Amino acid sequence: MRATIIHGPGDIRVEDRDYPTVQLPTDVVVKVVASCVCGSDLWPYRGVKPTRRPSAIGHEFIGVVENTGADVTALKAGDFVIAPFVVSCGECPQCLNGVTVACARLAGWGGRDDSGVKIDGGQGEAVRVPLAESTLVKVPLAGDPDDDLRKNLLTLSDVMATGHHAALSAQVSPGRTVVVVGDGAVGLCGVLAARRLGAERIIAMSRHADRQALAREFGATDIVEERGDDGVAKVRDLLGGVLADSVLECVGTKESMEQALHSVRPGGALGFVGVPTGGAEIPLRYLFDRNITVSGGMAPARTYIPELLEDVLAARINPGRVFDVEMPLEDAAEAYKAMDERRAIKVLLRP
Amino acid sequence: MRATIIHGPGDIRVEDRDYPTVQLPTDVVVKVVASCVCGSDLWPYRGVKPTRRPSAIGHEFIGVVENTGADVTALKAGDFVIAPFVVSCGECPQCLNGVTVACARLAGWGGRDDSGVKIDGGQGEAVRVPLAESTLVKVPLAGDPDDDLRKNLLTLSDVMATGHHAALSAQVSPGRTVVVVGDGAVGLCGVLAARRLGAERIIAMSRHADRQALAREFGATDIVEERGDDGVAKVRDLLGGVLADSVLECVGTKESMEQALHSVRPGGALGFVGVPTGGAEIPLRYLFDRNITVSGGMAPARTYIPELLEDVLAARINPGRVFDVEMPLEDAAEAYKAMDERRAIKVLLRP
Repeated sequence: MRATIIHGPGDIRVEDRDYPTVQLPTDVVVKVVASCVCGSDLWPYRGVKPTRRPSAIGHEFIGVVENTGADVTALKAGDFVIAPFVVSCGECPQCLNGVTVACARLAGWGGRDDSGVKIDGGQGEAVRVPLAESTLVKVPLAGDPDDDLRKNLLTLSDVMATGHHAALSAQVSPGRTVVVVGDGAVGLCGVLAARRLGAERIIAMSRHADRQALAREFGATDIVEERGDDGVAKVRDLLGGVLADSVLECVGTKESMEQALHSVRPGGALGFVGVPTGGAEIPLRYLFDRNITVSGGMAPARTYIPELLEDVLAARINPGRVFDVEMPLEDAAEAYKAMDERRAIKVLLRP
Repeated sequence: MRATIIHGPGDIRVEDRDYPTVQLPTDVVVKVVASCVCGSDLWPYRGVKPTRRPSAIGHEFIGVVENTGADVTALKAGDFVIAPFVVSCGECPQCLNGVTVACARLAGWGGRDDSGVKIDGGQGEAVRVPLAESTLVKVPLAGDPDDDLRKNLLTLSDVMATGHHAALSAQVSPGRTVVVVGDGAVGLCGVLAARRLGAERIIAMSRHADRQALAREFGATDIVEERGDDGVAKVRDLLGGVLADSVLECVGTKESMEQALHSVRPGGALGFVGVPTGGAEIPLRYLFDRNITVSGGMAPARTYIPELLEDVLAARINPGRVFDVEMPLEDAAEAYKAMDERRAIKVLLRP
């Protein structure tokens, strides 16, 4: 099969790999219908995160079950499934607490499972899925999903679940005022999630016309282009002299974390989902003096998917709109380039 | 009148001061019935926080209204009142959000109000209270409170409100497992607050027999004497291999913050109310990797007092048990010494 392999910074190749087979009785093999490039895939692409050896990449995909291991009964060939961005067991204390991203048997796409067996990356033609019953979410579909539905379903793998996590972590609830820092796919999904949770005012911080337009479509009531103190002043101004109840940090840099933190009112909450890079820190005294709550991390997508899926299937949310570019899998290198240069919000790859 | 003045590290004196009078139409003068020494009073006493000039000290007191300013209608002479540990206006956005400790007109006992007029400290015979209607909470009493009730009421000024804030910040709710780091009056009130909020298991980290006994009386189900990794291992062991859902940090040092943070399970919450000192920090990546929520700061005592007062008056909680020593106001220096040397959990001063 063809699969996307990262060799080093800026070096993405689509290569031949063995077609996956069931290795363990709890495995299934999924034929990928669509996958995509994540903002966090850009860290190794940019060399921010090292790539020690060529390795399969991609952690967001949807597809159809092809083969099942002997112990798999809840899934069968032909089932349409969403893969959350990590593998989880569903049985350990963390999974039972809903924190599937801290699973005792956690494994990542493109890595190895807890038996040491290799797992394929998501940006390829097929994937061996370990702990398949607890990891995958089956989508109740009659027939093939159309293009729009496919896109919507694919966002549940990561970005929509992550935007939802940011909103929950920031304690968004009906009537709250919200600021979203970051206008990537996650930030945009954060806007959508905040609207879904009943936020009254949603301020998207964005400087790109296309992203601003999508933010408004997703429910943003205001756009702020300013950054730093000017950005904070603008937020305060828009909210009648007070900062925001809830702020979603969807980038992970030092600057974005500061922007987010300084936008939270006393007693408000900051939800952060951007992987912390570049020395992003939280000064404890700043939190103490303002009673600000900080919460976040990797989204337990597996926990959220059923609830979000219901809204997708009922057409109440349309997160698939973040995919503004679609390419064949063979063009993966160009997909990374387009994302890196911010020519695309999010690129869907079709095997 | 007689009032407690701090002159510098280790130098506490009870001196003569002018008896306070109404200065502004929103003032009242309160004759102090009881006050006490706070763990945070020990920071200037120990020289951790500088004392630039002799200044009135003490921020926890209960008393009886003696005189009222022209604009005060909700309070009258003879009313029994609880003073929260800061002055707040009740009208600014922060007060309306319940975060009275971030009030736009915030002032502290022993400091100055926002008109620049001096405010007496709480450890004295009487106090001019600015913004009296919004600051003080009237206690509906028929006759004088007895000794036990006086003690219970005095804790609402700070320590019980702060323990409650720690528990709320740590998201304590029915069935949760809880660790309390710190066995001072606030930590012990944190135990009581956690029980009041329905926690199932409450582990108090304490090495002092008297405090352990009080922790158990307040609802602790387990005591852990170990510290550092051993303490974390003990918590994990007691909770069947998992860390705690909720951890209350009630000290404020680097060591106690680490102890607390390392006791939280993935997806759990840390509530911190110890004033951060000695370089206490929160590593953002640690939070991100475990989806740990961090929340806390100064307790909005004014917001919590009505709810806690109801439970005190109904004898459902007995937080006044933290006062293990009582002294006349004249012995304030000895009270500080006893607290500093940990011979007393909390000293009540009677003018």
